Amino acid sequence: MIERLAPRRKALAAALADVGAQGLLVTDPRNIAYLTGFRGSGGVALVDDDGEAVLCTDSRYELQVVEQAPDVGHVISREYVSGVLGRRRGPAEAPLAVEAEHMTLSAASALRRALADTGGAATRIVETSGLVEQVRRTKDPEELALIERACGVVDEAWTHLLTTGAIAAGRTEREVAADLEHAMRRAGSDGVAFETIVASGPNGAHPHHVPGDRVLADGDLVVVDFGATVSGYASDCTRTVALGTAPERLLDAYEVVLRAQLAGVEAVREGTGCAELDAVSRGIIDDAGFGDHFGHSLGHGVGLDVHEAPAVSTRSTSTLSDGDVITIEPGIYLPGLGGIRIEDTVAVTGGGGRSLTTTSKALRVL
Amino acid sequence: MIERLAPRRKALAAALADVGAQGLLVTDPRNIAYLTGFRGSGGVALVDDDGEAVLCTDSRYELQVVEQAPDVGHVISREYVSGVLGRRRGPAEAPLAVEAEHMTLSAASALRRALADTGGAATRIVETSGLVEQVRRTKDPEELALIERACGVVDEAWTHLLTTGAIAAGRTEREVAADLEHAMRRAGSDGVAFETIVASGPNGAHPHHVPGDRVLADGDLVVVDFGATVSGYASDCTRTVALGTAPERLLDAYEVVLRAQLAGVEAVREGTGCAELDAVSRGIIDDAGFGDHFGHSLGHGVGLDVHEAPAVSTRSTSTLSDGDVITIEPGIYLPGLGGIRIEDTVAVTGGGGRSLTTTSKALRVL
Repeated sequence: MIERLAPRRKALAAALADVGAQGLLVTDPRNIAYLTGFRGSGGVALVDDDGEAVLCTDSRYELQVVEQAPDVGHVISREYVSGVLGRRRGPAEAPLAVEAEHMTLSAASALRRALADTGGAATRIVETSGLVEQVRRTKDPEELALIERACGVVDEAWTHLLTTGAIAAGRTEREVAADLEHAMRRAGSDGVAFETIVASGPNGAHPHHVPGDRVLADGDLVVVDFGATVSGYASDCTRTVALGTAPERLLDAYEVVLRAQLAGVEAVREGTGCAELDAVSRGIIDDAGFGDHFGHSLGHGVGLDVHEAPAVSTRSTSTLSDGDVITIEPGIYLPGLGGIRIEDTVAVTGGGGRSLTTTSKALRVL
Repeated sequence: MIERLAPRRKALAAALADVGAQGLLVTDPRNIAYLTGFRGSGGVALVDDDGEAVLCTDSRYELQVVEQAPDVGHVISREYVSGVLGRRRGPAEAPLAVEAEHMTLSAASALRRALADTGGAATRIVETSGLVEQVRRTKDPEELALIERACGVVDEAWTHLLTTGAIAAGRTEREVAADLEHAMRRAGSDGVAFETIVASGPNGAHPHHVPGDRVLADGDLVVVDFGATVSGYASDCTRTVALGTAPERLLDAYEVVLRAQLAGVEAVREGTGCAELDAVSRGIIDDAGFGDHFGHSLGHGVGLDVHEAPAVSTRSTSTLSDGDVITIEPGIYLPGLGGIRIEDTVAVTGGGGRSLTTTSKALRVL
């Protein structure tokens, strides 16, 4: 693992040179994990323009930081920002980059105080956005393998759920979610990648429904959106099943979503624009007359975060490249009636797309 | 539920008057949930100094926001900050408070742009800290009932785990965590309040160990730290059990932690300083010669966040009052050997303390 980290910091160092900064204060926990290996919940890292890093965390993580991040300098202090700044190399007035999307106003105040204390009051602070995220976009083979394992977990858990009859009329959404999460854990997940969605009947019209006490009933479609985490890496998958005889309009919508999803996965290849990809699936839903009922974007990158770069949306300016891992997840949501979403996690590899989640998407009637 | 929300916003409005602001831009998701009822993962709220609120979220939550937050104004837009600012009442130059600990630098930039667009470029931005958190500290009866239910879930799940023999030599930490989380779900949890910790043998020396593939073995102490969520409210509980015959030094340490924990719970009462409370338990561990091996604070508030105000630490300046809910969780961590932590969630009520987690803390040998 460790040998993967130095190249990541070197790639970041190159990006730092582009923005004219001598170092980046890394405040996002996933970015810290990515650059140093450290996966505690509290800490700040400073990566300088030759790719060296120092990490400050508190005493809770004193042992963990040595095990997880052996090739970076450590400081143990509750004052994370001043902790790393005290170990800053180079001239005190050299420009310092910060993560504008992850640094809070109070952390920025702590930074200004710490700079004043360490003789760097004249340091120019450069607000940057997405520097580490752009490096993170391109997954290395080890990362791909971890995401693939996290996808294998959701496949195994979904198959288990279907074969054990866990999704059935008379059970609650909450019970289905419980069984699914248990199956993921048993299959090797470190935890859920996000709050599991089990949305039955009319609840399916809410894309982000939280599973509750509703009892599944004959005629429901049931949307199940779930993800596992393996060594910090996420997977993301959605399947929609029917219980008995669902309303005709929902069954029609299912076929539309399935066509849109298959066409989207088919269209994944290096060089394709993410907005163009979104348009492939969205066009099919629009043409079928359901365009008003697909309000979210087609997909998003997946990695240490379950939502990361690149966005796959109408407004995205990104272009797919090898090493991207994205979701393709069109949906149709009909208020009062129900919803459908079908989603795979797809790797861009060898110029084309390869779905890492592989369970059947044909409508399953339970 | 809704009738609880207006008083919360009124309490916030009073705090706003104290800092001389006409409104607060609320960017923390828990604070938004607390003040408006909305529990989606994306959005911004604006609460003004007469307790009126407007909420902006995106189309994913169009239905949900109406159901969960019926008594506040809604705007649907991806541009949360400008969305709520467009509905701002009162003079455009009135001071506007922001949450310094939750607002990112990029959100602050969006705010400045939006202010310029809506004629409020001269608006003074007041950086505040903990305004909503201070209101949240004092739980109302409905909140207490939800936390108590979340504590009931962990009690039920823990009892289930012990009676089914789920913690046993030969099983992995991961399997134990899976069974525990499943039992919590089945007992009514909406999800885990935080990443479950199952730390066996030497792993117990890491206070925040992530359960892995280590196989539990005879002679281990096993630290299990877990929490449930009910309607957004958390519980937090730790128990440590022994498998067979554990090393004498660990058994000695267990008795010390237990004494420290019982004394801590006993010392909880209205008017007691949080630092003073920390000192009660810490003194016992110090006196027993283990002071160097208890590196974290004694506890923390619990509510919508599993870590919230008040801190119960050596440096805390808070004083306990009725309506506080805190943890009491001393521990001893012996590198290479193992660890012990015992934790309850405790409500300050009727002037005294009442433990909401109630399973036995006597050393259980499995």
